[in-house]
Amino acid sequence: MNPEFHASRRACAAAGQPISQLMARALENPALISLAAGFVDGQTLPDDAVRQAMTSLLQDSRVAAAALQYGSTPGYHGLRRMLRDQMHQADGQDRPVDLDQIVITAGSNQLLHLVSESLLEPGDIVLCASPTYLVYMGLLLGLEARAFGVASDAQGMIPEALDDQLRRIQAAGELQRVKAIYLVPYFDNPAGATMPMDRRVAVVEMAKRWSRGSPIHVISDEAYRELRYTGDDIPSPRVCDDSGDTVIVAGTFSKSFSPGIRVGWGVLPRHLIQPVCDLKGNVDFGSPNFTQHLMARVLQMGLYEPHVAGLRESYHRKLTAMLDAADEFLSPLDDVRWERPAGGLYVWLELPDTVDAGLDGLLFQLSIREGVLYVPGQYCYPEEGEPPQKNRIRLSFGVQSCEKIREGVEKLARAIAAVTV
Amino acid sequence: MNPEFHASRRACAAAGQPISQLMARALENPALISLAAGFVDGQTLPDDAVRQAMTSLLQDSRVAAAALQYGSTPGYHGLRRMLRDQMHQADGQDRPVDLDQIVITAGSNQLLHLVSESLLEPGDIVLCASPTYLVYMGLLLGLEARAFGVASDAQGMIPEALDDQLRRIQAAGELQRVKAIYLVPYFDNPAGATMPMDRRVAVVEMAKRWSRGSPIHVISDEAYRELRYTGDDIPSPRVCDDSGDTVIVAGTFSKSFSPGIRVGWGVLPRHLIQPVCDLKGNVDFGSPNFTQHLMARVLQMGLYEPHVAGLRESYHRKLTAMLDAADEFLSPLDDVRWERPAGGLYVWLELPDTVDAGLDGLLFQLSIREGVLYVPGQYCYPEEGEPPQKNRIRLSFGVQSCEKIREGVEKLARAIAAVTV
Repeated sequence: MNPEFHASRRACAAAGQPISQLMARALENPALISLAAGFVDGQTLPDDAVRQAMTSLLQDSRVAAAALQYGSTPGYHGLRRMLRDQMHQADGQDRPVDLDQIVITAGSNQLLHLVSESLLEPGDIVLCASPTYLVYMGLLLGLEARAFGVASDAQGMIPEALDDQLRRIQAAGELQRVKAIYLVPYFDNPAGATMPMDRRVAVVEMAKRWSRGSPIHVISDEAYRELRYTGDDIPSPRVCDDSGDTVIVAGTFSKSFSPGIRVGWGVLPRHLIQPVCDLKGNVDFGSPNFTQHLMARVLQMGLYEPHVAGLRESYHRKLTAMLDAADEFLSPLDDVRWERPAGGLYVWLELPDTVDAGLDGLLFQLSIREGVLYVPGQYCYPEEGEPPQKNRIRLSFGVQSCEKIREGVEKLARAIAAVTV
Repeated sequence: MNPEFHASRRACAAAGQPISQLMARALENPALISLAAGFVDGQTLPDDAVRQAMTSLLQDSRVAAAALQYGSTPGYHGLRRMLRDQMHQADGQDRPVDLDQIVITAGSNQLLHLVSESLLEPGDIVLCASPTYLVYMGLLLGLEARAFGVASDAQGMIPEALDDQLRRIQAAGELQRVKAIYLVPYFDNPAGATMPMDRRVAVVEMAKRWSRGSPIHVISDEAYRELRYTGDDIPSPRVCDDSGDTVIVAGTFSKSFSPGIRVGWGVLPRHLIQPVCDLKGNVDFGSPNFTQHLMARVLQMGLYEPHVAGLRESYHRKLTAMLDAADEFLSPLDDVRWERPAGGLYVWLELPDTVDAGLDGLLFQLSIREGVLYVPGQYCYPEEGEPPQKNRIRLSFGVQSCEKIREGVEKLARAIAAVTV
């Protein structure tokens, strides 16, 4: 082939996620204690539950054949019905959503992709907490859309800051470019923050109020909702959306059950059902029917709740191990702070202002030398809006044992001490 | 929400596939004999094989846990290794492809989507047989790319016609817009045509020779390759690509094993590995690990080949039933012609020139009234290039029993007779 190949704009836009560099490093040195990857714990995967559900599913040849055949683009109605009922119960609304508002996807990530592709033209803006989920920002980059940071604290996105940011965007003549507000309202990635009910109400109200140039949707990424270790569940931002035309929910069984089965879902306002299904139909005609039937069987047989309960216990121990280790090794250090999340998989560290925790900084090098890997917080900040902070770190406690977590934090403390003397 | 919602350009481009109208009609009347859908036979799904493979997979807790965990974006290496060996054996090349050239996707459709998205900018051209796979044209439409028809006959795309079409495109100053030639070289959808080796050689050679403005890739969609009922297998067009930079292969277990498990794959030239994996990583981080492990286990335990052998027998009977019925009921009609495919799921009918077989035509209405559904051939023609034919019909023999196939063809013959008197 003579002329040189140039990948399409879209493929180029999707390239170069910093996280893949990190993963590559983690794989190079298996002795490294990775507190970086947001993987789930390999020790607590539901092999027993899957065995039971699978036996039951494959027992009846007719049921098995149905699971092995093509399904529909929005997904297996039996599973969608159970999801609807589960959400109805969790959120305590008067009326459940309609079944056709629920679409099954390849994890919540595909839902986020389909929804964002339905909403956004190149150059459009999505307002995100600052910091926010870095993979979602990569996805926006791939769509040539812009992530715009809004100041946030231990309770997530600050409504007053959102209002300010929208006012500034309006003053710049770009309000009609704002198409969505992206929230991770439960134990968010990376900061572990959970939005209290009043903030959920305020953000949804604000999305509606600012829907002038274009409708502004709220995308509520609820991937971690089930992983709560202390305190009570809070209803989804969906319940603040009386007219049902503003809030999109993304959910998944990847964190609470199995990422290998990869079943996620979305709850869509009516006007998004068709665009999302059109796009999905073009890509894969609907998610694999087989794993949808499997998850439905898991729920139906009552195998899900006990598994999640066990998972919560195990992750709670690990979170405690990480917080205890932080108290022990990090609290003696000046200007090192962290929050105590009520769930999820992450602890977010703030280091002294002078520290650059980035991939090219001294701390990252020293940490690797000590034998511990973290995610530099700076990759979790949107490119526009609220400025990035170089002195933040995301620690994940999902994968390692309690002992390794303690050891990892101790190593990290040594590296931090070395760069702050 | 006050302002009206407008879905993105991309979502609008993905909308309105004619096939969904057809499906809706089929579902409205369950008594209708559908010779339309390209579904696989529900009677021959591999529930026994899946039961055995699943039991073996879930027996060992460590193996089960690996299958339930996240995998990598290109897919499970165990499965990719088996696919490599299988292709190596089937195509009899000196050297197998490298493992990293193989990417696992959600059916072959996702591979076609990722590859096309990597290659194409809006306005770019893909040359296709005329007629060709309508879902692929829908996918191109969704990417705002252009399907351009090349004359084809019972042996698929005609190389001389391809050369002519490229010369005409060059004369129009658009050669740099041509990015790919899409082939379904085995028992194609819709025409049942299989390209002989000399045509494969000629098309790949032509793609290379015409790669002047931009590289022109050959996308070889081999979804039906395993479904051969008579004659010998022909090597993939991949073997004609000595430098390995031109031909992309799309394969799938959906037709030969189970569409519900939805495991497909691609073989990529080296320069496409990164763009395809970048795009895939952005959508779903890689296909579900669980079903990939399942398919690997199926292959490893030797459960695949016997299943496909049974499938071939069953589909061969159905093809014979359809051809026999055509001989009996259609040959008495003037100017009704069809080919005898060596495999696949489709028989392509040519009706008298005066007949409009489209959704709004008389024949379609009469056929519905008689109780039989077909795919109007006109939807299978690219919008540009070789002009569409209104008097063609795609019949599928995959789903119905031999009796229903005969009955369906008889009904269709009555409808055709009624519009041609």
